[in-house]
Amino acid sequence: MYDGSFSVRMAAVVLLSGGLDSVTTLFVAKAEGHEIYCISFDYGQRHRFELQCATEQARRAGALEHHTVKIDPVLFQDRSSHSATALIAGGAAVPENRSELLTGAAEKQIPVTYVPARNLLFLAYALSFAESRSAGYLYIGANALDYSGYPDCRPAFLQSFETTANLGTKAGIEGQGFSLKAPLVDDTKADIIRRGLKLGVDYSMTSSCYQPSDKGRPCGRCDSCLLREKGFAEVGVEDPLLLKDLA
Amino acid sequence: MYDGSFSVRMAAVVLLSGGLDSVTTLFVAKAEGHEIYCISFDYGQRHRFELQCATEQARRAGALEHHTVKIDPVLFQDRSSHSATALIAGGAAVPENRSELLTGAAEKQIPVTYVPARNLLFLAYALSFAESRSAGYLYIGANALDYSGYPDCRPAFLQSFETTANLGTKAGIEGQGFSLKAPLVDDTKADIIRRGLKLGVDYSMTSSCYQPSDKGRPCGRCDSCLLREKGFAEVGVEDPLLLKDLA
Repeated sequence: MYDGSFSVRMAAVVLLSGGLDSVTTLFVAKAEGHEIYCISFDYGQRHRFELQCATEQARRAGALEHHTVKIDPVLFQDRSSHSATALIAGGAAVPENRSELLTGAAEKQIPVTYVPARNLLFLAYALSFAESRSAGYLYIGANALDYSGYPDCRPAFLQSFETTANLGTKAGIEGQGFSLKAPLVDDTKADIIRRGLKLGVDYSMTSSCYQPSDKGRPCGRCDSCLLREKGFAEVGVEDPLLLKDLA
Repeated sequence: MYDGSFSVRMAAVVLLSGGLDSVTTLFVAKAEGHEIYCISFDYGQRHRFELQCATEQARRAGALEHHTVKIDPVLFQDRSSHSATALIAGGAAVPENRSELLTGAAEKQIPVTYVPARNLLFLAYALSFAESRSAGYLYIGANALDYSGYPDCRPAFLQSFETTANLGTKAGIEGQGFSLKAPLVDDTKADIIRRGLKLGVDYSMTSSCYQPSDKGRPCGRCDSCLLREKGFAEVGVEDPLLLKDLA
C-alpha cells in the first residue's frame, strides 16, 4: 500500500544547465514519474544565457525547487595560465568550424572546452541537495557519443560516482541509497531531439552555444552549435531557437 | 634527472577546515615535500571561527593560494526540516556531554552533526582546484577512529573517491592522475596531536568546537570538544587554545 515515503524517495535532482541535453533529461525524469528538484551552476561560463533557459524550463517542469549555485571560476582556471578551459572568459579561444567533429574523427581527444572535474563537482552538489531532500535519484544529461572526449561524460565515470555516492552518504549506508541516471548517455543528438519532441520539450528555450550573444543568439561555429545543427538536420525539423528574434 | 615537472606534480591541495585534524594534515603534507594549495569552506557552519584559523595556518604554511569557498547552506539543509544537521544554525541542537563517545560505545551511529555528502563536495572542489593547478595530490584530515559513524570519513569512501577522480578528469585519463592522502585516518586524537607537536603545529590557532563563541572560545561540551580534551589529556600536555584569552 502506498504510504507516502515512496513518493519522497522517488524525488530526483536534475542537473540542469539549460542546454538541449539537460532540458531533455529534465522532461525524461518527469515522464519517469519523479518529483523534480533542479540545480544549475554559474561558474563564469561564457554562455551564461543558458541559465535563463534553465530557470524557465525548471518552472515549466514544475520543479519543487531550483537553485543556481555560484562557483568561483578561479577554482577551474589558473589565472596565470593561457591554456585554460575555453568555456570561461580569459581561457583559450573557443574552437570554431571543426568539421572533423561531424565525421567522428575528433572523438578521441579531450577538447579545450573541458573544465577540470566539472561534472564531479556538479554531481557532488546534486548529491548534497538530494540527500537533504530525501531524493533517491540524480539525473544528468551526460552524453558519451558526440563527445566521448570528455572523461566526465563516460559511463565508467558515472558508475564510479554512483558507487562513491553510496559509500559516502548516510542514505547510502543506512537507507535506500542513490541511483544516478544518464538517460541520454548512448544517444545521438538526433535521438535526443526526437525523444524530447515526443515529450513536448520546447527547444526554443534551450541554449547550446559556447559563446552566444547576451540575448542567446548562437554563434553557429562552435562544436556545440555544429552538433546541434547536425542533430536537427538529421531529425528533419528546423531548430526553433533559430526562428526566434535574438538580437 | 630533475626536470621541473616533478615539482609541479608534487603540489598538493589540502582541505583545511581550521580544525585540529586538518591543520595537522597541512603540516604533514608540507613535511612530505609538497608545495601547498589550501581550500576551506564557508557553508553556514556554527563554528565559523575555524575559518580564521584556516587562513592563518595557510599563511604560516606558505600556501601558494588559499581559497575559502562559499556554499549556500540551503543545499545541505531543507529549510522546512527540523531534523537537519546540527552543524548549521537552524538545524538540530548540537549534542552535549555524550560521555559514551569517550568509551567507544557511540561509534556505530551516524551523529546528527553529519552534513549531507559534505566531504564528497569538498573533495570535488579540491579536485577541480588541483587539476587546474596541475597538482597531483589531495590531502584530507579524515579520521575513521573517533567518528567511524561519518560515512564520508571511512577508507572505503576515500578509496572510491580516488578511483572516481581518476576516471573523471583529464589528468586521470591522460596524465599521472591523483593520489588522495588521508594521513590521519587510522590515528587516535592523541596520535594526531603528538604527530603535530613534532611538526611544530601551533594548536592554539586551531578550532574544534562545534559551537564556539565568536572569538573562538570552545563550549567544552560538544563531541568535538570532548574528543579534543581526551586527546590532549592522553598526550599529557595542556591544550594551548585553552590558555588563550578568548572572551
